[in-house]
Amino acid sequence: MPNPLDDSALDQAFRTARSANGFSDEPVTEADLRAIYDLLKWGPTSANQQPLRIVFCTSDDAKEKLAAACSGTNAPKVRKAPVTAILGMDMAFHDRLPTLFPHADARAWFVGNDALIRESAFRNSTLQGAYFLIAARMLGFDTGPMSGFDAAAVDAAFFAGTSIKTNFISTLGHGDPAHTHDRLPRLSFEDAARLA
Amino acid sequence: MPNPLDDSALDQAFRTARSANGFSDEPVTEADLRAIYDLLKWGPTSANQQPLRIVFCTSDDAKEKLAAACSGTNAPKVRKAPVTAILGMDMAFHDRLPTLFPHADARAWFVGNDALIRESAFRNSTLQGAYFLIAARMLGFDTGPMSGFDAAAVDAAFFAGTSIKTNFISTLGHGDPAHTHDRLPRLSFEDAARLA
Repeated sequence: MPNPLDDSALDQAFRTARSANGFSDEPVTEADLRAIYDLLKWGPTSANQQPLRIVFCTSDDAKEKLAAACSGTNAPKVRKAPVTAILGMDMAFHDRLPTLFPHADARAWFVGNDALIRESAFRNSTLQGAYFLIAARMLGFDTGPMSGFDAAAVDAAFFAGTSIKTNFISTLGHGDPAHTHDRLPRLSFEDAARLA
Repeated sequence: MPNPLDDSALDQAFRTARSANGFSDEPVTEADLRAIYDLLKWGPTSANQQPLRIVFCTSDDAKEKLAAACSGTNAPKVRKAPVTAILGMDMAFHDRLPTLFPHADARAWFVGNDALIRESAFRNSTLQGAYFLIAARMLGFDTGPMSGFDAAAVDAAFFAGTSIKTNFISTLGHGDPAHTHDRLPRLSFEDAARLA
């Protein structure tokens, strides 16, 4: 039976980790991005759907294209970050289920049910987006997740002609503590949970 | 700058962790549930919304009520698990933003915009649901997340007269490896990601 991880691991993943608003100049390499993916991919999704699709904006061109679709406060963060990840969801994720979930005809659960496709893609790509944030932290990186952008414009710029839609975006790099905001309050157990 | 966590931490949170289909008899205490909440609460949400609301079903009555709303394969898992968490979302989360996000009138972004409320509550409570799964693993527990249930029936049984709606549910305890399924395949980096 596994034991609790030590305090330094809990701190790095959750307790003292902070969303980054600025980053050091240290680069993020393709090997880093592959390592983050190869960790987050193990997180569970319903019927192994894995709808998450990621575009890692690393070039100035891609960052500029993404920044142009962001809110006024988020655009400069995208321009300055070493990488910004577009965390998208493939609305045709079910076409891969014969391979990803071979012991049932899971594809048939979704064909023709657009409401279920949308709900499942959104829920499970968001779970995977959270795995991205935590996996990056566990590997020593910092992230800055954002939902202040024009999703239709990001879709048009990065996913035209595909079945992929943008869910949220996140900067990625090595955070500069000089740009970290004060910690905001969290709900107490009593405010957020109860036993039944 | 933080270093990558060691292999045992990455394994326990992601790489060798598995969804549980059965649990040992070891109990999960209220102190355990509070410890899991006090870790997951630090995960980031957009504008600090924290829409997640959790009902931890620990009594036989609550488990039976929840099982009655579950699919045929999921009902016995709920009946047998030490705890099943109902991971819900408060559709009135924005009423707390004056306290949770005090430096802007964030509540005003949502009032009267039901589509934005629904999207934000779903995205951010799902992020927090993923934090629940990973936090539980990091503290030495196993989880079994499920979306096969009648959400309207769970809402009626646990959230009648409130602004809370069910997102997904998850068993919680100490997994019995005898009930773990074979590992299903994961998409490669090339299938799920690209650099731009």
